[in-house]
Amino acid sequence: MYVIMVYDVNVERVTKVLHIGRRYLTWVQNSVMEGPLTHAQYRRLKAEIRKVIDEDEDSVLFYTLRSERDVRRENLGLVKGGPEHIV
Amino acid sequence: MYVIMVYDVNVERVTKVLHIGRRYLTWVQNSVMEGPLTHAQYRRLKAEIRKVIDEDEDSVLFYTLRSERDVRRENLGLVKGGPEHIV
Repeated sequence: MYVIMVYDVNVERVTKVLHIGRRYLTWVQNSVMEGPLTHAQYRRLKAEIRKVIDEDEDSVLFYTLRSERDVRRENLGLVKGGPEHIV
Repeated sequence: MYVIMVYDVNVERVTKVLHIGRRYLTWVQNSVMEGPLTHAQYRRLKAEIRKVIDEDEDSVLFYTLRSERDVRRENLGLVKGGPEHIV
């Protein structure tokens, strides 16, 4: 599966979320990471994120697709994630 | 087509981006909007966004899918966009 994670997390906890996310996904923009994961990896990622966020204050949104081929990316302005992430 | 827009825009310009985005898409989380658009609407949205952002400082990422059915959403923590946006 292909996972896009968008997080809106209080600055006190954002470094933890970033560290967990980076072990599974590639950073593409401020607050956005993405990458291919197995279902088991996706479950572990969510479990780890759940442990560090405050569910009353933070929000983490996951978009999941069957394959990266189902999505196209287009960027306006700064390309923060490096050229390998551009369609 | 189905469009997910994630923006990372300087606070001086973010209100403009938000106003444009809201005319085309539904706000789902801080910096994230999404919705179904025609190709023509998508082109207009990008053209309007391009006019207000500073391409050296801001970044707006668009994910496009053939259909909303190709993507699933899962939310941890706060659900900011309202219950109609949850799978």
